[in-house]
Amino acid sequence: MRVLSNELSAHIGRRVTLAGWVHAKRDLGAVAFVLLRDRAGLAQIVAAGQVELPPETVIEVEGEAVASAQAPDGVELRDPSFRVLSTPVEQPPLELRRPRLKETLPTILDYAAVSLRHPFRRAAFELAAASLHGFRAALDRLQFTEISTPKIVASATESGANAFTLDYFGRPAFLAQSPQFYKQTLVGVFERVYETGPVFRAEPHDTARHLAEYTSLDAELGFISDHFDVMAIVRVVVAGMVEAIRERAAAAVERLEVELPDVPAEIPWVHFAETGVDELDLAPADERRLCEEFGEFLFVTGYPMAKRPFYTHPEPARPQYSNSFDLLFRGLEIVTGGQRLHRYGDYVAALAGKTEPYEGYLQAFRYGMPPHGGFALGLERWVARLTGASNVRETTLFPRDLTRLVP
Amino acid sequence: MRVLSNELSAHIGRRVTLAGWVHAKRDLGAVAFVLLRDRAGLAQIVAAGQVELPPETVIEVEGEAVASAQAPDGVELRDPSFRVLSTPVEQPPLELRRPRLKETLPTILDYAAVSLRHPFRRAAFELAAASLHGFRAALDRLQFTEISTPKIVASATESGANAFTLDYFGRPAFLAQSPQFYKQTLVGVFERVYETGPVFRAEPHDTARHLAEYTSLDAELGFISDHFDVMAIVRVVVAGMVEAIRERAAAAVERLEVELPDVPAEIPWVHFAETGVDELDLAPADERRLCEEFGEFLFVTGYPMAKRPFYTHPEPARPQYSNSFDLLFRGLEIVTGGQRLHRYGDYVAALAGKTEPYEGYLQAFRYGMPPHGGFALGLERWVARLTGASNVRETTLFPRDLTRLVP
Repeated sequence: MRVLSNELSAHIGRRVTLAGWVHAKRDLGAVAFVLLRDRAGLAQIVAAGQVELPPETVIEVEGEAVASAQAPDGVELRDPSFRVLSTPVEQPPLELRRPRLKETLPTILDYAAVSLRHPFRRAAFELAAASLHGFRAALDRLQFTEISTPKIVASATESGANAFTLDYFGRPAFLAQSPQFYKQTLVGVFERVYETGPVFRAEPHDTARHLAEYTSLDAELGFISDHFDVMAIVRVVVAGMVEAIRERAAAAVERLEVELPDVPAEIPWVHFAETGVDELDLAPADERRLCEEFGEFLFVTGYPMAKRPFYTHPEPARPQYSNSFDLLFRGLEIVTGGQRLHRYGDYVAALAGKTEPYEGYLQAFRYGMPPHGGFALGLERWVARLTGASNVRETTLFPRDLTRLVP
Repeated sequence: MRVLSNELSAHIGRRVTLAGWVHAKRDLGAVAFVLLRDRAGLAQIVAAGQVELPPETVIEVEGEAVASAQAPDGVELRDPSFRVLSTPVEQPPLELRRPRLKETLPTILDYAAVSLRHPFRRAAFELAAASLHGFRAALDRLQFTEISTPKIVASATESGANAFTLDYFGRPAFLAQSPQFYKQTLVGVFERVYETGPVFRAEPHDTARHLAEYTSLDAELGFISDHFDVMAIVRVVVAGMVEAIRERAAAAVERLEVELPDVPAEIPWVHFAETGVDELDLAPADERRLCEEFGEFLFVTGYPMAKRPFYTHPEPARPQYSNSFDLLFRGLEIVTGGQRLHRYGDYVAALAGKTEPYEGYLQAFRYGMPPHGGFALGLERWVARLTGASNVRETTLFPRDLTRLVP
């Protein structure tokens, strides 16, 4: 029966079996130290003589668990007998035994299958998994229904410019840039919906914060008064994500030295018109400045209609502004959302009568839709903000961009 | 403060506000009955005189909750005052007020935005949402890590024949037919992983059980002895899905008159060689016959290698057979899985040396991988089996097939 590395200290004095990868090895002549890596962490094995097991050999090892002040967790495995499950055909081009990988980001990404095995790198994705859980759990408690909507679509969601096109049985089709149209449609069915899944943007720019494919955490709800009702949900969701990380990914938080934020009971907000920005959108420098002024979390509301998509609801009293918002976290936008139009006639006007490519979408509005709104959060960007990663590729398992399609 | 239809009986004697859609209406001259639909169900409203609210009008209605033996849940809303939130621009082409939709499947799918509002149709997707929750919760308990892997890939997972191609910044790329390569790679990182997400198959056949895009529930785990270890996980996961449906979608189960299966502590299994089938694969009639013989759930193991993908692990003693399995449920295959090859040399041999398109994938095996295996379950097909739907399009929100790209 296999025991995990973090369970070893409960078995002191007994012979047990560990399994995992040879993470590192030191041969001192008379004695060899093998560091075994498994999904729970690292365990030290002490063997007499030399050990002919190169790093990344997959092993099962039976031995006696012995208390040892020098070993991780105060326990090590002695008198081992090894069984090799598989042997690497060559040594990895990265040194996994170092506390941090020293290689450049392109090398790390080129060799993702092995660089992700590094405990530090892997930890970011434990934060991502816990965040996904927290997102869903928070919305489940609020009676949202999970949905699965198509990623192959007939018309671009946001604008045709950065949509990938594909050959769909001889016809052109697009990859969905967001589940926007479908989540709105399904407010007409379930009132409150969420989806976590891939979205696709043919981003022509090579930046540290854009990807061609990323994981979008989307929610949408009906019977709202305005975008402030949506912002209240965002606050609950983000707090739920932080809480889930605290509960489910404590080891990763510690390893990465992440300072988890306190999500205030009321996240402060400022209207775009009061930000002192003259342009139609915030520049990255504006986002950083505002967070310095207001705190880790800040809603900016009321973005100019000119910069928001056609389904955005205008601000009733000042229709050049919108009932939209972004959530800034530590100087970067991580959530975008707002109230949407809900009347068929408003869509016809917003599309200047060019409704034909959107007929499937507009069905929902033809047959009665409540006031509604929603938001989207980019998972990789959220984790990058938490870990302080300067490039969103560091928090993406297998990033896709202008040049990167493999691995 | 809004009250949901299923909360009304807790407010008898008080004035409360409901919100939702006009589901049906009967004008009897002196009195009108309005059936309001919200996310929780239906509520009856009784108004003096006539009510000028066509079906699918979105309303808020304030009135007094009054006990009434004839009304759903024994309560109705009287002395109502209506506020219209939005008005349909035309009447839907389907009669939502009927107990079951009478229209043909193509019409139902063409008008998904409105047909999904029907309580009976919507209920199938409540089973799907609960199933997703149960899948994840079961694997979370077993220390699996959730992953998000790319859907735009450089090489076809299963075979090039039914992969969609797309233009990736001027280069050809494919839509992933499964997360197979990535979930295996990540066994090298997390040991145990799962993913729930879209997969894409350019199925050239128009059948009742194939879709061009569906939701795949994938899991993969390392340090197994053989495929029987994977089958043990499948059993736990399917039992967890049934349990989650029972707990979270009881109303949908009742509405659809679903008989939830009892998942036996040990699901019976039969080796392909003992099925009496002469071909290399089971025909649908064989699957039905076997379930009649063995019960609702049956594992068929050991499918001939000739019909399984190149990464399949052969049966050591009879290498024409494989360490693979399908799970049949009520006469239809819903899960496919097995043990995979884990040694680099075995992949080189299986690919007859044509490794170049798979270099990204083969990295994991170059650097040491444990014996591992996994499985995939098609969500829409699972729900179709539960509900007895004869066509998987009935349990897909917005199906994609040879001819259907909208809505």
